[in-house]
Amino acid sequence: MNFELTDDFLDQLRDVISTENKEKTLELIEKLHPADIAEMFDEISIDDAKYIYLLLEKEIAADVFVELEDDLRDKFLKILPSEVIAKQLIHNIESDDAADIIGELSEKKQEEVLSQIHDREQAGDIVDLLNYDEDTAGGVMAKELISVNENSDVQSCIEEIRRQAENIEHIYNVYVVDDNNILKGLLSLKRLVVSSPSTKIATICTPDVMSVRVDKPADEVGIIMQKYDLVSIPVVDSIGRLLGQITIDDIVEVMREEAEKDYQMISGISEDVEHSDSPWLLTRARLPWLLIGLIGGIIGSRVIAYYEVDLGIYPEMIFFLPLIAAMGGNVGVQSSAIIVQGLANNSITNVRTINKLSKEFLVAFINGIVCSSLIFAYNYFVSDTFILTVTVSVALFAVIIFASLFGTFVPLALNRFKIDPALATGPFITTVNDIMGLFIYLLAGRILFSLFA
Amino acid sequence: MNFELTDDFLDQLRDVISTENKEKTLELIEKLHPADIAEMFDEISIDDAKYIYLLLEKEIAADVFVELEDDLRDKFLKILPSEVIAKQLIHNIESDDAADIIGELSEKKQEEVLSQIHDREQAGDIVDLLNYDEDTAGGVMAKELISVNENSDVQSCIEEIRRQAENIEHIYNVYVVDDNNILKGLLSLKRLVVSSPSTKIATICTPDVMSVRVDKPADEVGIIMQKYDLVSIPVVDSIGRLLGQITIDDIVEVMREEAEKDYQMISGISEDVEHSDSPWLLTRARLPWLLIGLIGGIIGSRVIAYYEVDLGIYPEMIFFLPLIAAMGGNVGVQSSAIIVQGLANNSITNVRTINKLSKEFLVAFINGIVCSSLIFAYNYFVSDTFILTVTVSVALFAVIIFASLFGTFVPLALNRFKIDPALATGPFITTVNDIMGLFIYLLAGRILFSLFA
Repeated sequence: MNFELTDDFLDQLRDVISTENKEKTLELIEKLHPADIAEMFDEISIDDAKYIYLLLEKEIAADVFVELEDDLRDKFLKILPSEVIAKQLIHNIESDDAADIIGELSEKKQEEVLSQIHDREQAGDIVDLLNYDEDTAGGVMAKELISVNENSDVQSCIEEIRRQAENIEHIYNVYVVDDNNILKGLLSLKRLVVSSPSTKIATICTPDVMSVRVDKPADEVGIIMQKYDLVSIPVVDSIGRLLGQITIDDIVEVMREEAEKDYQMISGISEDVEHSDSPWLLTRARLPWLLIGLIGGIIGSRVIAYYEVDLGIYPEMIFFLPLIAAMGGNVGVQSSAIIVQGLANNSITNVRTINKLSKEFLVAFINGIVCSSLIFAYNYFVSDTFILTVTVSVALFAVIIFASLFGTFVPLALNRFKIDPALATGPFITTVNDIMGLFIYLLAGRILFSLFA
Repeated sequence: MNFELTDDFLDQLRDVISTENKEKTLELIEKLHPADIAEMFDEISIDDAKYIYLLLEKEIAADVFVELEDDLRDKFLKILPSEVIAKQLIHNIESDDAADIIGELSEKKQEEVLSQIHDREQAGDIVDLLNYDEDTAGGVMAKELISVNENSDVQSCIEEIRRQAENIEHIYNVYVVDDNNILKGLLSLKRLVVSSPSTKIATICTPDVMSVRVDKPADEVGIIMQKYDLVSIPVVDSIGRLLGQITIDDIVEVMREEAEKDYQMISGISEDVEHSDSPWLLTRARLPWLLIGLIGGIIGSRVIAYYEVDLGIYPEMIFFLPLIAAMGGNVGVQSSAIIVQGLANNSITNVRTINKLSKEFLVAFINGIVCSSLIFAYNYFVSDTFILTVTVSVALFAVIIFASLFGTFVPLALNRFKIDPALATGPFITTVNDIMGLFIYLLAGRILFSLFA
């Protein structure tokens, strides 16, 4: 029931495939859920995967395909002929998945596949969906849904469901529309089940249904569905006509991708990668931050070189160069992370920036006092030079304040200019704060030593 | 329909509250969704929130309560008398939410509230749920569900739904059980709608239903529901008896919390905080990492002090101290982030650690070669000392290799010992790699300069 992929199973599978024993191969996988078969494809060679895929029943094969990882999907799409894609794959899946798949094809292959789809209504739906930006409600919604006219009754509604039931995997709600297909309300399946056949739809439908415009960003749809605990939400155009619906499984996917993107951004990974990706892809995703860090380090080295004479006179200052730089980076990441997360879950709005900065200043002030006092106490007992003790503490305090405000301000500013605020969290904030930290520290040293030494 | 909280609205609301105009207050909020009212409570004083809360109808008040932020929930629970909690709140919400709320009360108040719940069955359900760890399937599931005996028919199933419909907000599936309440299968509401009343349940039910054991960790339930696109999953005990069900909205919440926790961990924030929390709470969540960083910085200063004489002889080495330390930190965070994310979405299993380390070695090798070559080229043209040029490149390469392997190994090891691998991502990896970076660099410098200078 809950299948777990083991090395034993994979060995067995490879055995039966190598002997080209179709029956035994099918026997091994017949109890597996399509999602498990898709997962298994990640662990075997593309040739073995293709061999199994072509053995599967059309409908199961289509379900497996939808669950495949992106890179494997691409490979399969390159291998499969247009006819198979059109008649076996697209025919058996929902319009949103179909549009995703066709959107990945070359323009030429798109036309080939579209022309071979038998059901012209389905082809039309797919072409409609292809027009929407994939990060909007339109790009995520499916055209499949059950709608009934507000003037009909429960009996005809049930007949409509029966008629369409085959095309739709999950039905959560029935949408109620007027003669112009304008969304008027919603009828839960539960309500439908418990109502008598002759009841008029208008009397049992819930008006004031929550809906989203087709151009709404997909992540905002996610926030709405989560906030109001919705399993599906209808999508309408600018005059309220019902275009499609978004179900919670699509949104869970969008939310997961958003969260992973933010996580990778703050860890300095610039592409959506997994540990199972090729070393080349992993390297490509990681090099950009390392290069930014490298450039930052080189600039930092110039800052230090500029103060070389001072460091020659007060060599103990050298000991704390990495500490000051690191603390600037750490504080900056914390500040920006709080802002990015708040923006992502909508708990921070784009107003009253000044309030946010004042609050951040207060937090930074307390953190700064605590850290500076501790390093002061340490140096007071360990260091021979009292001015160094003062310099490190003063600089650390100033760096914490600067890094906090900078880390708060940058993502807010990016967001205001409609740039993804998460861009600020990784390389940029850390590197700038590293450099500024060194600069503040060395400048403070020069001033304090020249005044008091 | 889609409400947006504005300053104008809040001003209006404060006005009508200050004049204690009950009617106008209710008029202002009557069109709001409970989730919007809960959000609004975050923006007004606790006294104003309490004033509004007590004006609301019992059922709406209960829905609002369930949506409140944790800190506000605590405040409300302290203010509300046991009787109100038992009769107005608990009575109107589902068992999983009720158990969460009662679990937050003091032991004395728990008993008071439980004794005042009128519906003894509900009280029993809640006490059952309180026994489960909140991070397991049992801690997340609700007892409310519709189950029918496999020997009954569609007609009696519909009657059962009608009877229970009032208690259950969303019905996705009907569970089919035998005489001993052992889960036998599942009946989708869609199937039920399109079947004739006299059909036997056993003939239309789907056997082999996916279920989870009551002690399964909640995050694993999330992975299963997401993988198989489920909107609800039944929870069973060790002999397969049906205990409850978990719905997708609960799991979305669990997943969101997990993702936020990992994000905060890697940003060095040790508690679940939001920007709207008090400055004190924000400081408390941020200080631990800063203190670890501070201690790391002090250890780093000792490492540098140990090599003070070398640095006196080759002062140019000083320039690259922060660069080496920062690169070690950056690489380590990248490596551990990829592992933590893989473990979180179950794409990495706990076997073949050695394979993961070899792959990471390859990636680190390429990154190391690229970064070392670049810094070599830079120093070749800028620096006067060729040995420094070699030292920086060699050390940077070694640091990148070490930090990658360390960042990969630590979360895998933590996970093996059942400790949250995300613990490794923030302070620990960065600080250790900072220090090791300095050590490797200075040691390499001493060796190379003593050999060739």
